[in-house]
Amino acid sequence: MLIRNGTLVTAGGTIRADLRVEGERIAAIGDLLPYPGEPVVDAGGCMVLPGLVDPHVHIALDTGIYRTDDDWFIGTQAAAFGGVTTVVDFATQFRGQTFEEALASRLEEAGGKAVVDYALHMMVTDLPPGKEGELGKLVAQGAAGIKLYTTYRPNYYADDATLLRLMRTAGAMGLITLVHCENDAIVTEATERLKAEGQTSLREHGRSRPPIAEIEAVHRVLFLAAEARAPVYIVHCSTARAVDLVHEAAQRGQLAFAETCPQYLLLDETAYEGPHPEWYILQPPLRPAAERAGLWERLHRGWIATIGTDHCDYALRQKTATGSFLTTPGGLPGLETMLPLLHTFGILEGRMGWPDLVRLCATNPAKLFGLYPRKGTLQPGSDADLVLYDPEPEEILTASRLHYVAGYTPYEGWRVRGRVRMVMVRGQIVVEDGVFRGTPGWGRFVPAEAFSPQMARSALA
Amino acid sequence: MLIRNGTLVTAGGTIRADLRVEGERIAAIGDLLPYPGEPVVDAGGCMVLPGLVDPHVHIALDTGIYRTDDDWFIGTQAAAFGGVTTVVDFATQFRGQTFEEALASRLEEAGGKAVVDYALHMMVTDLPPGKEGELGKLVAQGAAGIKLYTTYRPNYYADDATLLRLMRTAGAMGLITLVHCENDAIVTEATERLKAEGQTSLREHGRSRPPIAEIEAVHRVLFLAAEARAPVYIVHCSTARAVDLVHEAAQRGQLAFAETCPQYLLLDETAYEGPHPEWYILQPPLRPAAERAGLWERLHRGWIATIGTDHCDYALRQKTATGSFLTTPGGLPGLETMLPLLHTFGILEGRMGWPDLVRLCATNPAKLFGLYPRKGTLQPGSDADLVLYDPEPEEILTASRLHYVAGYTPYEGWRVRGRVRMVMVRGQIVVEDGVFRGTPGWGRFVPAEAFSPQMARSALA
Amino acid sequence: MLIRNGTLVTAGGTIRADLRVEGERIAAIGDLLPYPGEPVVDAGGCMVLPGLVDPHVHIALDTGIYRTDDDWFIGTQAAAFGGVTTVVDFATQFRGQTFEEALASRLEEAGGKAVVDYALHMMVTDLPPGKEGELGKLVAQGAAGIKLYTTYRPNYYADDATLLRLMRTAGAMGLITLVHCENDAIVTEATERLKAEGQTSLREHGRSRPPIAEIEAVHRVLFLAAEARAPVYIVHCSTARAVDLVHEAAQRGQLAFAETCPQYLLLDETAYEGPHPEWYILQPPLRPAAERAGLWERLHRGWIATIGTDHCDYALRQKTATGSFLTTPGGLPGLETMLPLLHTFGILEGRMGWPDLVRLCATNPAKLFGLYPRKGTLQPGSDADLVLYDPEPEEILTASRLHYVAGYTPYEGWRVRGRVRMVMVRGQIVVEDGVFRGTPGWGRFVPAEAFSPQMARSALA
Amino acid sequence: MLIRNGTLVTAGGTIRADLRVEGERIAAIGDLLPYPGEPVVDAGGCMVLPGLVDPHVHIALDTGIYRTDDDWFIGTQAAAFGGVTTVVDFATQFRGQTFEEALASRLEEAGGKAVVDYALHMMVTDLPPGKEGELGKLVAQGAAGIKLYTTYRPNYYADDATLLRLMRTAGAMGLITLVHCENDAIVTEATERLKAEGQTSLREHGRSRPPIAEIEAVHRVLFLAAEARAPVYIVHCSTARAVDLVHEAAQRGQLAFAETCPQYLLLDETAYEGPHPEWYILQPPLRPAAERAGLWERLHRGWIATIGTDHCDYALRQKTATGSFLTTPGGLPGLETMLPLLHTFGILEGRMGWPDLVRLCATNPAKLFGLYPRKGTLQPGSDADLVLYDPEPEEILTASRLHYVAGYTPYEGWRVRGRVRMVMVRGQIVVEDGVFRGTPGWGRFVPAEAFSPQMARSALA
Repeated sequence: MLIRNGTLVTAGGTIRADLRVEGERIAAIGDLLPYPGEPVVDAGGCMVLPGLVDPHVHIALDTGIYRTDDDWFIGTQAAAFGGVTTVVDFATQFRGQTFEEALASRLEEAGGKAVVDYALHMMVTDLPPGKEGELGKLVAQGAAGIKLYTTYRPNYYADDATLLRLMRTAGAMGLITLVHCENDAIVTEATERLKAEGQTSLREHGRSRPPIAEIEAVHRVLFLAAEARAPVYIVHCSTARAVDLVHEAAQRGQLAFAETCPQYLLLDETAYEGPHPEWYILQPPLRPAAERAGLWERLHRGWIATIGTDHCDYALRQKTATGSFLTTPGGLPGLETMLPLLHTFGILEGRMGWPDLVRLCATNPAKLFGLYPRKGTLQPGSDADLVLYDPEPEEILTASRLHYVAGYTPYEGWRVRGRVRMVMVRGQIVVEDGVFRGTPGWGRFVPAEAFSPQMARSALA
Repeated sequence: MLIRNGTLVTAGGTIRADLRVEGERIAAIGDLLPYPGEPVVDAGGCMVLPGLVDPHVHIALDTGIYRTDDDWFIGTQAAAFGGVTTVVDFATQFRGQTFEEALASRLEEAGGKAVVDYALHMMVTDLPPGKEGELGKLVAQGAAGIKLYTTYRPNYYADDATLLRLMRTAGAMGLITLVHCENDAIVTEATERLKAEGQTSLREHGRSRPPIAEIEAVHRVLFLAAEARAPVYIVHCSTARAVDLVHEAAQRGQLAFAETCPQYLLLDETAYEGPHPEWYILQPPLRPAAERAGLWERLHRGWIATIGTDHCDYALRQKTATGSFLTTPGGLPGLETMLPLLHTFGILEGRMGWPDLVRLCATNPAKLFGLYPRKGTLQPGSDADLVLYDPEPEEILTASRLHYVAGYTPYEGWRVRGRVRMVMVRGQIVVEDGVFRGTPGWGRFVPAEAFSPQMARSALA
Repeated sequence: MLIRNGTLVTAGGTIRADLRVEGERIAAIGDLLPYPGEPVVDAGGCMVLPGLVDPHVHIALDTGIYRTDDDWFIGTQAAAFGGVTTVVDFATQFRGQTFEEALASRLEEAGGKAVVDYALHMMVTDLPPGKEGELGKLVAQGAAGIKLYTTYRPNYYADDATLLRLMRTAGAMGLITLVHCENDAIVTEATERLKAEGQTSLREHGRSRPPIAEIEAVHRVLFLAAEARAPVYIVHCSTARAVDLVHEAAQRGQLAFAETCPQYLLLDETAYEGPHPEWYILQPPLRPAAERAGLWERLHRGWIATIGTDHCDYALRQKTATGSFLTTPGGLPGLETMLPLLHTFGILEGRMGWPDLVRLCATNPAKLFGLYPRKGTLQPGSDADLVLYDPEPEEILTASRLHYVAGYTPYEGWRVRGRVRMVMVRGQIVVEDGVFRGTPGWGRFVPAEAFSPQMARSALA
Repeated sequence: MLIRNGTLVTAGGTIRADLRVEGERIAAIGDLLPYPGEPVVDAGGCMVLPGLVDPHVHIALDTGIYRTDDDWFIGTQAAAFGGVTTVVDFATQFRGQTFEEALASRLEEAGGKAVVDYALHMMVTDLPPGKEGELGKLVAQGAAGIKLYTTYRPNYYADDATLLRLMRTAGAMGLITLVHCENDAIVTEATERLKAEGQTSLREHGRSRPPIAEIEAVHRVLFLAAEARAPVYIVHCSTARAVDLVHEAAQRGQLAFAETCPQYLLLDETAYEGPHPEWYILQPPLRPAAERAGLWERLHRGWIATIGTDHCDYALRQKTATGSFLTTPGGLPGLETMLPLLHTFGILEGRMGWPDLVRLCATNPAKLFGLYPRKGTLQPGSDADLVLYDPEPEEILTASRLHYVAGYTPYEGWRVRGRVRMVMVRGQIVVEDGVFRGTPGWGRFVPAEAFSPQMARSALA
């Protein structure tokens, strides 16, 4: 198939060129004449992007306490509609489980259902001293990284000794560590105080997890990572200072990377005062508006490596069940809205260019998690994961037109510019003109290559 | 009384001058003729120092688990023999106690027994949210500082939220916070591993508390102190990197101060291989020899603010009772040996001058803990706390000639140069030519002034 | 024309792909089938590079004192044999001349003779206060940058006021300033001393221009550039510390770039002791061997932006005429040897990869000097400037086989790996299998775009 | 003589104490009873300061172009009235002169006339390569430092090579180098531009020497000093950034010290708009008001080591002779007004305390220039150079009551608080209650000790 007349976007710039897909791969780029009988797509007026690679997704999430209602078909369908052709999700090693078991069970869930490709990080919750060698197997199994938490006792929480110990081994074995950074003691104290004061409505959610909880944990985790000589990736940075700390560590030579999410760039804590605080229950919570501005500025300076959605598709019912932030699951659906939001509020407002969007949402996630150059760029030989994005049409975001089980979107009623016209996964069209054309099971597990320091550094540049 | 012909030492330099004591104060300095009938001491050949101010002392220590056998007479008598005329010790606020109770009980212990002056820090173990205002009382009560621990669950341990919360209030109220820095999780993990391996003999003590435990905690505590805008004092730094971190914080404008102890300057972990590992059980433990050198170098650069002894007079019986580091009380006696050791291995080896010794062991502790210029210097109007030190004689340190209950000294058999010839506390001779001449009860509680940022900065210079 | 089976190299990586040239441009990249009748080149076993862009070349140089014997045919022919398809040379504004005159005269020299493309920096020697606005014209005329010297009185020397004044205007007008950094007073003093001592043989050349002369000037010029808010490019860094200073400036946010040359990476001052000191007379001179190592290390860290040759084709006769460094023209021929030398001693010794070579010798020069993406990369739409490099054959470098007028090469007898198999300039083959096939006059002036801070920053990454 | 009831001020603090003078020295400090027949001065209500040590004075200045009308009696009498008991002035080595000659001739001028003590820096203007060893003699001769200029061609100007060469030797030989920092080329260009525009009235003076001229020169000189491993002292810093650069150098470990002057703390460029621009012709010129504030702030942070007057007593006639800044001698009289001005606008406005004033104007100059502890402090054994300052009375500064030949003061009509009540030089009263009681010739040359890095560092603290 030949895609003609589009504007191809890579992290390095844009060019006007045709692009040929043969089988599952990009075959050629340039001025190309159709072969006899070759189907031709006219991409005139459209941006042709590499399919987005979302580094932080929770489809069919089971935390042990809460469970989202979606499944891998629903989740990856939403991804497809959002131009995300690779989701990097998580397998959870529950207490007592081996990594093999964790991975196998997660692969089984996804298999036959996924409509876009997927890779997996491993949430490590139980790897006592002496067992660190198990991490080596994860590289062989193609895990994209391991994920640790500084909070959420007792199921996810890793103490400093565990962080240090696991990062030491992970670094040595070619695995990057993703860390959810919030200081557990500070969160607990703030939460207990609100409980004591009877202030547990959803409106108080933000107060239960103050910015310093994130910032302190980032500061500490970066230090432990330096000590461990391990690459580290700080998920969902919600404050400017967290990003600054990551940047300073990188300046000192550490392999340290900051992720943020559309919700931290676009929303702020005033949302808790509005009629739907339940739409905004997530960890870390939304922050003062100054943080939004600070994050955009740091993104502009190149200090943020990636944007991920931290997508969690909890049903509205779950969000409103108790009215207390103590018992409301955290996490927002976001896979389907990231691209038009970043186009509208990033590119059109001059905060980034198209190459930046591709770098943050495709190239860098692929580079950091062992998927590049198979995923995340447009070049001959890469998987033909493509998005044709028409930047002109206007749309109003609304839950009823999105493909979540959630029943809500935090961006309800927002006016955005541009529309995904076509999405292709390994040469197969999965969305076209608003119609789903994918096949459950087409989506495949993409084993990650071992972490490459050199490639990762190129993501920082 | 007139002290003639001595070489007076202050942090600023040395001068040949006479010094007159009238009542409890220094009355004059210079070329002074005796009044008729005035007693005259010929200090020819001697250094005349301000009495040392030891910022970190545990006389009659009760940890809730262990108790030293000394009392305030024994402890302060050892101080007097060592030229220490002011000990800054601790009152412990046990769970459920008020500060008033803690202070009163400690003052009662000391009253009538002490032979040198004393000030008190408050070990805070129980100050729940909402009660921080209590700290204000400590200033009025003359507490020198508050002390917090990042380890020793459950009795002393303060989590990060508590550290942040208490430092915020302490800083605002004019109190400096002393912190014992060792990461609890790292110490626990290392200890558990040794237990699991059956490696709990005294020789293994050092391995149970690795350097990174100290370094990480210092890094974190400095960060929390910056966030809290609070002055912070890191006790017993045993690693070069801990001192570097404190120095870097000070360079960034923080009021951050590093203390080390003679034992970290003079001993190293090879001691655990010797015949008496029990002599060296303390927290943090002795370190690799490179750390000793690193500490001396940083001391030379002016990055260490004070030297304290962390004196704990456990009897040898307690040290050898179980043979396991898990159940052996930590802490060394040191009040009586600090001065000759620092003279011999500091001054005579060219690592510091007399003014440095006075700065580190007298002037700076006094400045940081609200006792200056009453204590810690030689000037008219200051308390007549004096040490006449004869730098010539040689001595062999040995437990039997020291005034501890311990029954041992970690410096057994070490040859030192110089001897305390006379010690005076507020004009009263307490030690003279090796003979104790003090009076129980002469030692008095010295209420500290509120912390002065300006004076503290002058200690960093 | 279709180039098949090669390994395409860009700054971003390597891919196995075909590349189609149509007219003067790259038309397509990927798996490409030949059109009927389309000529096909089998590049199997070869690296296909974008033609090198040498940012620092002096063809047909007239310094006012010395003149090289080459002309634009000879110079660009050597470039072609070396895989350099764009030379950035200099027009000199002599005293009293306008920029238009300077440029016109230089373009006339080159026109009809050049066989590869060329861009021009303007050496500014006479722009008195009040005339700075003239710099604006240079942008319109397509000058790549302006060049200033901190030494060479009286013809080139610019004092600090002039540096500051011209950089202020240049920065505002979209011109980057290249500076030759050597402190004039330090060079003069060292030279005078050697003269006084009668030590003026060629062997003494290095002593006449000590490293601190370069380092001081770099330190000062970076400061003036910061004050002027102007982008600055330090030519021919010969010391590690010069590169460090540039890097530190960049870290502080300056647009500051370091160039080095193959001679500083490969040769050192021991050459002056050998039989041919005349081969190594250049400014700055060769340095102690430790600097070579230091430069490679900084190149590896990414602190060096570009490699240029500083090519000057003086005839051996000129080099040996007087035997005194005072009266021997400085400068080495290098256009033809850069590529095989960097391949052999850079890539094959593991100091860089192919993408690094392309970044340093093609992409970055193009980005910094307004030629990107027309020059310096392989992508559809770019000029079809190509080098097919066969990495296997071994050769001995020797003057008689090179195309200089010099009659010598500083690398005489060096064994290198790899050979340029084919070179193409805008779709036209100019060198093939060691045979020159170009046409005088085919080489064209490429007007530079205005300096782009954003593009320049991407060169630092 | 016994001075009773005063408040003694040192750099370390203030104490209420008596002070006994015996012969030329301070004999004792404290509670002192008069000996029979001993004269007693009641200093009740007064501050008792060590006599000020002005590190930067030009009495009887002959620049080769201009000459002040004062002599050593007039100059040191003004000093005495201002509480300055030691002036550090300059001997100029004119071209062709030896240091011995320069020093002898200056000592002859001062001998028999001076009423306060004096030390001398050597202005080095002619020390060609190979003669640097002469600097060693200066140490033996008691020179306080050497002075170099980056401007004032041709008589004083030292180029970068000379700066580097002389600092290298000076540093090795135990001499500190004072540098007047203004970039000659920048000053020349600005001046030439003003000349070309016919803008040479006194009002334009400030524009002829822009701040960047000072700042660049400081940046460069600090770098050269680092390279030379030499202590360096930047005279008359007039901009905040100059001080910042010195501070940063000190933070990197250099022995670098910043001096400022009362005129830069108290006056600004608006003075040139007023009726008497001639009063303010000096180099560097007065600056924008923001610099004044910046200097006070840095003084407060401890980044300024000393305050000197740069006293030059040109007669008003010389200041108004031509009306052009090109031909008007630069320099202000200031010895007599420094103390009341700093008291009024420094201490009473909360910008410094009395100990700071003593540190900046007495202790630190003495420490940096080899005069401490003989000069610059109050301690037994030091010279009895004393100032009794009564802080209460108010006065209006006016030329007619000052003891200059100038006929003007830049502070005409300013209201100040406090008055010098008594000044003593080596035990001899020279000023008492506004009456001069000194004797020409009592003032003596004080040979400086060699520069002590350790003592100098204590000046930075």
